[in-house]
Amino acid sequence: MFLRNCWYVVAWDHEIPAQGLFARRVIGEPLVLFRASDGSVVALEDRCCHRLAPLSRGRIEDGCLRCGYHGLLFDRAGRCIEVPGMEQVPAGTQVRAYPVRVHHRWVFVWMGEPEQANDAWLPDNHSCDSPDWVYRPGYLHYDVPWQLVCDNLLDFSHLSYVHEKTLGGTPAIARARPAIEAIERGLRIARHVSGVPPPPYYSALREFKGLIDRWLVYDFVLPATLLMDSGGCEQGASPDDPERSVHLHSCQALTPESESSTHYFFQQAHPAHLGDAAMTEGLYQGVVRAFEEDRDMISAQYERVREHGEGAMQSLPMDAALLRFRQLIARECARERTGQETR
Amino acid sequence: MFLRNCWYVVAWDHEIPAQGLFARRVIGEPLVLFRASDGSVVALEDRCCHRLAPLSRGRIEDGCLRCGYHGLLFDRAGRCIEVPGMEQVPAGTQVRAYPVRVHHRWVFVWMGEPEQANDAWLPDNHSCDSPDWVYRPGYLHYDVPWQLVCDNLLDFSHLSYVHEKTLGGTPAIARARPAIEAIERGLRIARHVSGVPPPPYYSALREFKGLIDRWLVYDFVLPATLLMDSGGCEQGASPDDPERSVHLHSCQALTPESESSTHYFFQQAHPAHLGDAAMTEGLYQGVVRAFEEDRDMISAQYERVREHGEGAMQSLPMDAALLRFRQLIARECARERTGQETR
Amino acid sequence: MFLRNCWYVVAWDHEIPAQGLFARRVIGEPLVLFRASDGSVVALEDRCCHRLAPLSRGRIEDGCLRCGYHGLLFDRAGRCIEVPGMEQVPAGTQVRAYPVRVHHRWVFVWMGEPEQANDAWLPDNHSCDSPDWVYRPGYLHYDVPWQLVCDNLLDFSHLSYVHEKTLGGTPAIARARPAIEAIERGLRIARHVSGVPPPPYYSALREFKGLIDRWLVYDFVLPATLLMDSGGCEQGASPDDPERSVHLHSCQALTPESESSTHYFFQQAHPAHLGDAAMTEGLYQGVVRAFEEDRDMISAQYERVREHGEGAMQSLPMDAALLRFRQLIARECARERTGQETR
Repeated sequence: MFLRNCWYVVAWDHEIPAQGLFARRVIGEPLVLFRASDGSVVALEDRCCHRLAPLSRGRIEDGCLRCGYHGLLFDRAGRCIEVPGMEQVPAGTQVRAYPVRVHHRWVFVWMGEPEQANDAWLPDNHSCDSPDWVYRPGYLHYDVPWQLVCDNLLDFSHLSYVHEKTLGGTPAIARARPAIEAIERGLRIARHVSGVPPPPYYSALREFKGLIDRWLVYDFVLPATLLMDSGGCEQGASPDDPERSVHLHSCQALTPESESSTHYFFQQAHPAHLGDAAMTEGLYQGVVRAFEEDRDMISAQYERVREHGEGAMQSLPMDAALLRFRQLIARECARERTGQETR
Repeated sequence: MFLRNCWYVVAWDHEIPAQGLFARRVIGEPLVLFRASDGSVVALEDRCCHRLAPLSRGRIEDGCLRCGYHGLLFDRAGRCIEVPGMEQVPAGTQVRAYPVRVHHRWVFVWMGEPEQANDAWLPDNHSCDSPDWVYRPGYLHYDVPWQLVCDNLLDFSHLSYVHEKTLGGTPAIARARPAIEAIERGLRIARHVSGVPPPPYYSALREFKGLIDRWLVYDFVLPATLLMDSGGCEQGASPDDPERSVHLHSCQALTPESESSTHYFFQQAHPAHLGDAAMTEGLYQGVVRAFEEDRDMISAQYERVREHGEGAMQSLPMDAALLRFRQLIARECARERTGQETR
Repeated sequence: MFLRNCWYVVAWDHEIPAQGLFARRVIGEPLVLFRASDGSVVALEDRCCHRLAPLSRGRIEDGCLRCGYHGLLFDRAGRCIEVPGMEQVPAGTQVRAYPVRVHHRWVFVWMGEPEQANDAWLPDNHSCDSPDWVYRPGYLHYDVPWQLVCDNLLDFSHLSYVHEKTLGGTPAIARARPAIEAIERGLRIARHVSGVPPPPYYSALREFKGLIDRWLVYDFVLPATLLMDSGGCEQGASPDDPERSVHLHSCQALTPESESSTHYFFQQAHPAHLGDAAMTEGLYQGVVRAFEEDRDMISAQYERVREHGEGAMQSLPMDAALLRFRQLIARECARERTGQETR
């Protein structure tokens, strides 16, 4: 069960080469991406309509894509414009083309009906492309269904245990109750803890002497994008005092590759006027280490889910946000199936 | 189809660490084992009741087990005694706990109803923990259903072919007809051959000059434990003449890991007053080499069984014991299903 | 869906050792091959009738095959002639034996009813064993259903794209329309192009200065054998002028290993009176490089076919031969199922 009428992140902008073909699968469908002659990104079904060979095994010719098996040539709209040996291309010889947007360095594809593609639904991933923020872009692959990774991002109580030695550092995060609020196509979640040790990964940013106050405030919006302000300041200090605080902005997007695997695009940015390349790299390494902790745990969880089914899960109050988001997805999917208006 | 109301060997005693967690699967169920504060072994379902994460990814705190995902804390009875952020643990928050016995260095778990756990059904694996016997403990993993390994152990005619260069050494073993006798919850099987060359693996124990007489006498009891006296003596000599004979005792247990994989715990012991560490090691290496011969053959056999089905097997007189034992298992399983008394 | 009443190539003659056992699977059935005392090749079902162990794990004794598990002994007709420990072999103790022919260095097995084995259906693979031709024998394994490889061999328009840098060298091959003609149990396909650059793999054979004329003429016969004359000559020259032309003969056979994997036996021969061992090796290397290009493409295509189904394929005129051959296979399979005469 996947939403189709929404924008999925398929790649970082820099992953699509100036020349050449880039293959990636989204919600089970194989896509081939490349740049047209004007540099804009094109996304086609990665499967020739003739004998089903992957078009990503072909080559670009003047902004069109030539199949590497029998040589059919497709334009950026997916129309076949040449069949070797034929005078005329038979009607209906074409592959699917997907609407594409490059928005703040993320490449988005619209997997639903092209005429419904709605730019208002692109997320506010501004820190991906802003003079105010610096980061190293990240990507991880999960052999796990996307919803289990959503669950993880919608309940930060796991920071205390999975990330004890990276993002967490204290059981206080798990003990705090977050505020959860509905927003358009998603949830806003805010969690504050005070008088806690700085988390280990802050060491790349600032050396706090004593305990700190921390905040983690994020929107989580369809299909599965996290946009987060977070930070910490000396206990009792103003969060706005630049000498006594840390501010971060993070954008993270989950894209189902298949029913059982997931793409994870992420960045954790620090303010551009602070620190140097070593800080940027240190922050990236700290976050990657933590996200690998997540992946280890969720992969192990998924082994159990596969054999036991999710029905065996016992809900607890800490699951509030993830349960609401699962309901939101189910409702939107139902709406798509029944053909109702999606807005 | 697995028996549940019986003791399965889950580990050698030394495999369960003093601190830390040990994970192993028995009849398809994932278990986590650890030592309580008093050193006794605890076995719990290795799956948190909350989001199904494996508890073996958590940690011990004062003899209790803390889940590594969201921090639920479980006592040795499987009861959750803390949910981070909640004053009260909701009723019914618990995982399954399994009865455990440590008996002659084997750790047994009872997979059926706990109140039926019956210590009288622990096998007589005395040589695993006796001043009279010395051995190096062994473990092998099979990607094969346990019943095919039982079949192997219940028909020693394969010693002549699979183990020609290790345990066998002569076609006479295959030609001999064993005596088979019903015992409580199993079978007693006795096979004698005389005037045969000593098997190659005896070379670690004694250098026989000529032909010998051999005996292989064992009980095979539910669920799948072999307890064997074996040995050989110079042809015509008394088996009790310590200068002219070899005596061994072996305990071997098969535990289904899943429908298609099996744990194999084994030891082949020699008398403690004979030989040194080199003899112990030489005997162990000889047996491991032979058991790997079995595993190679049974794994190859299993490939054929998977695609062809056991129905294609043609029974021969040498299958008498294995067929009786399969009937015994089927009868006990049926008894469990229909809820009859198991004694 | 496999044809059974036909000859499948199971091995090159030299693959069957003088002593010892050779295992290979054909149309899903495991076979064990060996040489009888007179050197002739025997093919038996590679599965003991007793406990289903692969007989290829056993050994040869006086031209008979002894099972390595419990020692049953089978003769070349598949009859069990000894069960260890029994005076008499029970009736019906046997495994299947398959008719075998060694024909021009290819070992063929007949997978259907033995009494229908028809030597007239052996293909004319004469260049495999002729003083006039020289080659190095080739074998490749495909994790792809055989029909997708047949498709490939029945439409050489792919030479222009898949093999641009090896066998092809020009889009003219794809643009040419071949002549297709029905022959007994197959098709004859002839394709001519003129005024094209010599294909890169010809460089092992002759250095042409300018453009050439090429021909590719082959029979493709059931179950899946290609027998091809091909060559090229200076543009406008006589194909028979030995100083200005290249002549090759190729024999290639596809044998389904299973529903989803295929054996590929092949040779591309040059005239014996031309060139030396270096030419033979250079030609072989060129062909292997090209056939690995095919395997890469067809394996990628098969990924798509597996998830999408062949029904999504859109037929084009270039598919004429492959569609006719698929119909021929379907018709012959139907005939076998309904038990009609196969001739």
